[in-house]
Amino acid sequence: MISVFDSGIGGLTVVKEIVKQLPGMPVLYLGDTARTPYGNKSPETIRQYALQDAQFLISQGATMIVVACNSASSNAYQLLTTNYKLPIFDVIIPAARRAVALTKKKRVGVIGTRATIGSRAYEKAIQTIDPNVTVIEHACPIFVPLIEEGWAKKGETTRIVKLSLQGLKTKNIDTLILGCTHYPIIRDIIQVKISKRVKLVDPAEEVVKELAQYLKTHPKLAQSLRSTEDHRFMVTDVTEHFQAIAQSWLNRSVKLEKISFQ
Amino acid sequence: MISVFDSGIGGLTVVKEIVKQLPGMPVLYLGDTARTPYGNKSPETIRQYALQDAQFLISQGATMIVVACNSASSNAYQLLTTNYKLPIFDVIIPAARRAVALTKKKRVGVIGTRATIGSRAYEKAIQTIDPNVTVIEHACPIFVPLIEEGWAKKGETTRIVKLSLQGLKTKNIDTLILGCTHYPIIRDIIQVKISKRVKLVDPAEEVVKELAQYLKTHPKLAQSLRSTEDHRFMVTDVTEHFQAIAQSWLNRSVKLEKISFQ
Repeated sequence: MISVFDSGIGGLTVVKEIVKQLPGMPVLYLGDTARTPYGNKSPETIRQYALQDAQFLISQGATMIVVACNSASSNAYQLLTTNYKLPIFDVIIPAARRAVALTKKKRVGVIGTRATIGSRAYEKAIQTIDPNVTVIEHACPIFVPLIEEGWAKKGETTRIVKLSLQGLKTKNIDTLILGCTHYPIIRDIIQVKISKRVKLVDPAEEVVKELAQYLKTHPKLAQSLRSTEDHRFMVTDVTEHFQAIAQSWLNRSVKLEKISFQ
Repeated sequence: MISVFDSGIGGLTVVKEIVKQLPGMPVLYLGDTARTPYGNKSPETIRQYALQDAQFLISQGATMIVVACNSASSNAYQLLTTNYKLPIFDVIIPAARRAVALTKKKRVGVIGTRATIGSRAYEKAIQTIDPNVTVIEHACPIFVPLIEEGWAKKGETTRIVKLSLQGLKTKNIDTLILGCTHYPIIRDIIQVKISKRVKLVDPAEEVVKELAQYLKTHPKLAQSLRSTEDHRFMVTDVTEHFQAIAQSWLNRSVKLEKISFQ
């Protein structure tokens, strides 16, 4: 099965893309809701958690892994690929490629959690592809709780988004990476506040495009991933709140299975 | 040593009270920053974390424990007192006592995280003391991230506090418990938005008053807690951000020691 892990429920935006772009391929999802969020934790702690997440998915029969969480992708991707031999996809590289393809002014903005921005992973990925692109990164740590706590559609969030993007707005970027799984939920607000002329890149979309491309060139693997089974949603902690968000984001009923690493 | 644990850095408001009310008594602090926050986790997960926190403090020589975290106090206090024989203080009971003493209309409001409000621990504690007091509880999960992310003094926070307290404002309460360690940081905003006539109860203040009272009647224990040693701040994850908040809240330099439960 295609397996996806995330620090919590944000990675469901990647599942949504898989359902859209790769119908007939069920997903094994793991959300580490007992320790969520990762974005305010240190690189060492995020790496330890990401290894446990991947190890668990492999023990459950994962044949490929998508690291949906930007904080984990940016701090642990290299470690994961060193430790495990199955195909692992991160959200950083596909989004970086897309941003480089889109930017005409060669000026790309990135917003994300403190852990993602602190790692400078997007900057490194973009400049590996094209060293002439200037990358301006900015942490927006308050967006995730606003979205998770149901404030996405309120005026205060619009105002906080506006204030948070003010600095970036003066930097003459023409492309902006939404470097956190939650941000597509407030994509319209971000688009208006950063400027309608700035092109937005959603890493969830990009990683699933890359996954689809990979499967085209690996038809045997693709065939083995097809099944009539339903998706499985595993979490390290179950709360009514997570359950409600999961259902509302995926627009379907979701049964969360509680698992433990011990 | 007096030991204090919390889901993260919020419990430093309790340390501040100990420094004020019990000078000369160093504190052994444990913040579970690798898994913070607890307020959005399930009761089962909070109980498991609280047991690990207490066990660790005992292994470090704790002779009494203050559960600074409202989410842990409300979901795990009984379990902790069943499992451990040393004196354990929670923040719920002292704050409930104070609220009952203050309310004239016999109508008390409580704000807190989803886990604290979901447990109904404040309601139970208040009604055990005085069954005639009506308790109106309301979760304000967005306050903690706003405070931790540095938005406490911005207009958007004032507006969010106003909107969050709107329902409670119509309930004719005359006393409000600030049922989360972070809330005293925005006490002035809460006071203005709920009404200047409503009396606010800060559980950190109340638990330390109770602790001081207990030590008066246990002079031998009190004597053993006196020392010229400095406070110790242990955390399960160290980030620059936590370090900065800790120093700004305590208004002194703070060296965070990273510890691990394994």
